[in-house]
Amino acid sequence: MDNLELIKQISITSPGKIVLLVIDGLGGLPNPKTGKTELETASTPNLDKLAASSICGLIDPVSPGITPGSTPGHLALFGYDPVKYNIGRGVVAVLGIDFDLKPDDIAARGNFCTVDSSGLVTDRRARRIPTEKCTELCQLLNEIKIEGVKLSVRPVREHRFAVVFRGEGLSPEISDSDPQQTGVAPNTVKALKPAARRTADIANEFIAQAKATLAKHQPANMVILRGFSQRQKLPSMGDVYKLKPAAIAAYPMYRGLAKLVGMQLLKTGPAITDEFDALKQNYADYDFFFLHIKGTDSAGEDGDFNRKVSIIEEVDKALPALTGLKPDVIVVTGDHSTPALLKSHSWHAVPVLLYSKWCRADRVGGFSETACTMGGLGRFPGTQVMPLAMANALKLAKFGA
Amino acid sequence: MDNLELIKQISITSPGKIVLLVIDGLGGLPNPKTGKTELETASTPNLDKLAASSICGLIDPVSPGITPGSTPGHLALFGYDPVKYNIGRGVVAVLGIDFDLKPDDIAARGNFCTVDSSGLVTDRRARRIPTEKCTELCQLLNEIKIEGVKLSVRPVREHRFAVVFRGEGLSPEISDSDPQQTGVAPNTVKALKPAARRTADIANEFIAQAKATLAKHQPANMVILRGFSQRQKLPSMGDVYKLKPAAIAAYPMYRGLAKLVGMQLLKTGPAITDEFDALKQNYADYDFFFLHIKGTDSAGEDGDFNRKVSIIEEVDKALPALTGLKPDVIVVTGDHSTPALLKSHSWHAVPVLLYSKWCRADRVGGFSETACTMGGLGRFPGTQVMPLAMANALKLAKFGA
Repeated sequence: MDNLELIKQISITSPGKIVLLVIDGLGGLPNPKTGKTELETASTPNLDKLAASSICGLIDPVSPGITPGSTPGHLALFGYDPVKYNIGRGVVAVLGIDFDLKPDDIAARGNFCTVDSSGLVTDRRARRIPTEKCTELCQLLNEIKIEGVKLSVRPVREHRFAVVFRGEGLSPEISDSDPQQTGVAPNTVKALKPAARRTADIANEFIAQAKATLAKHQPANMVILRGFSQRQKLPSMGDVYKLKPAAIAAYPMYRGLAKLVGMQLLKTGPAITDEFDALKQNYADYDFFFLHIKGTDSAGEDGDFNRKVSIIEEVDKALPALTGLKPDVIVVTGDHSTPALLKSHSWHAVPVLLYSKWCRADRVGGFSETACTMGGLGRFPGTQVMPLAMANALKLAKFGA
Repeated sequence: MDNLELIKQISITSPGKIVLLVIDGLGGLPNPKTGKTELETASTPNLDKLAASSICGLIDPVSPGITPGSTPGHLALFGYDPVKYNIGRGVVAVLGIDFDLKPDDIAARGNFCTVDSSGLVTDRRARRIPTEKCTELCQLLNEIKIEGVKLSVRPVREHRFAVVFRGEGLSPEISDSDPQQTGVAPNTVKALKPAARRTADIANEFIAQAKATLAKHQPANMVILRGFSQRQKLPSMGDVYKLKPAAIAAYPMYRGLAKLVGMQLLKTGPAITDEFDALKQNYADYDFFFLHIKGTDSAGEDGDFNRKVSIIEEVDKALPALTGLKPDVIVVTGDHSTPALLKSHSWHAVPVLLYSKWCRADRVGGFSETACTMGGLGRFPGTQVMPLAMANALKLAKFGA
């Protein structure tokens, strides 16, 4: 029996409210000059105070050593086994833009990228072109015609877009064109099963036409695609946890993910304070809130240690708006680590604090990777965060007699 | 999806090198006079220094409370679920002596032992007779004839030997004759399934004839057999991890085990320094090294606390030969605990340190059972050691999007 089935059997509705604050890519690595991680460098009096009355620990979102993509990292935090529910990035990207994805559609995540005159990728993100530029280029790509397929190219944000292939007999079993590194050419999309050959041809045709269309649009003169996938039905959080869950996330991908597990998407502005405002505005109407902070991960991926520190400090400043609502359970953690030193997601365990009246606080007096090592929750799988939050909100009945 | 399948999907080849130093039976129990374990008693400046720049923890090779045999302990360290891949000791012993085991052969591990005039076992290891004596006695046993079966009895080392039964319709589903204790008679081998009755009869016939043959060969006047088993195909480490793995082990059984998972066996002399020399000689040619130290386990099994301390100190002295090679990842641990106080393998968690540039070092300043309790890796399953080592060598791509 998987985790969700067990929880579904014993979950009950109660008045308690849970807020899950996900600081994306929260975990870091120490700056060699100071020996302190981003979180340890940041001045975080509010998080430290909260940690002091919380039970703390470290989570492995997937399992030790595994570097999670954003989807598995979040699914784990929502309690879903991320290896069992392996959702394609294309589907997630598309769900985040309010596109009506049909069960047979093939969705892919795209990046506008830069290639040099030999066709080698020099920047996988085309200098993060503004969203307006992305929108304009997507309109151009939307005009591409391929026989037997209806194409939809939609902007996501900055260099990111989504493309949906709609037609008869398409298969998601094709490989990425995104080489995941610079200095090499994009990969040719390949069929992973014989039945997917036509779909691979269609994807390659789209990429070839996109290249021609974008030739004069430096730095966004090429596209790379990944995560070809079809929609998969997941159990809803409402059904499993008997919660009325809502999501506050400025980034489309995370809204898509939240929708996939049945959360209500709340309106929010892009700033951190906007998100905390949205929490306050909607606090009476839901009993579970997923509040997502994206900037920490972006700063980590850019290798910008100081910016990541600043964003953590910004979250800390906004925190009283959350704690002031007095949720029964507050969880603060990340979906994975994104150390600025590695400029990428990483496998490192992620600090977590869980506050509730019933949490049995440990002796951890501040919120950091090192402090959480001594926490009462120990080091544990990310999928166990929700059962712990539910228990602390008195929303889980006894298992067995 | 099991651990190995997940890892196989995301493993990549990179220049990084990993050294896994297994100090067999490393974990111990405190000497009642001093309150310190063998590892805590030993002077280990080099291990302590390494621990200070490592992330540390404690592993349960199989799971909490389970005392692992050498095979499951090692398979776990190599990343193989030791319950799923339950290899018989007979097979491992035979693989270590370059015997060409066929798929239908039944292999068993044997000990020459001492029985008294009533047939009760007084020493399960016949005072650890020299390997030359073992070889001589195996030649005698090799002459035993049993109808319908071809017998091969081969020396391993000291009191240890292997026996292979080759013939039609044999089954490995028979119980051990080794009673695993003294003061009792060896067990009669029993069929665990009806189809194994003839094989059990054959094993008992072999034991009876061996007893007669050895009657005048005190202290090696009897044999005990265990681990009746057939060869099973395991995924290779090269295939799963995309590594070029090599093993340095003076003891045949561990070479057999390494061969079973596809490691290249390197030539080494019997001394600890020989093994570290072999590492240096072959360092350029492989990217994963399993270096096995046997003496600690033997000393623990003999209840010789001080000898175990000395051998740990000997390993510590040799350590700079390893660290001087500057491997990207160094893991030091054991396959299980063998506390001298218990004179046997035990279930106690085993200290582990993992050094890499990216390890996120914790505050553990020395290498011991007690210090590792505070480590950043927490307490975790032995099967997670390889994923962590791979991640730290930057040999695992991101999982999911």
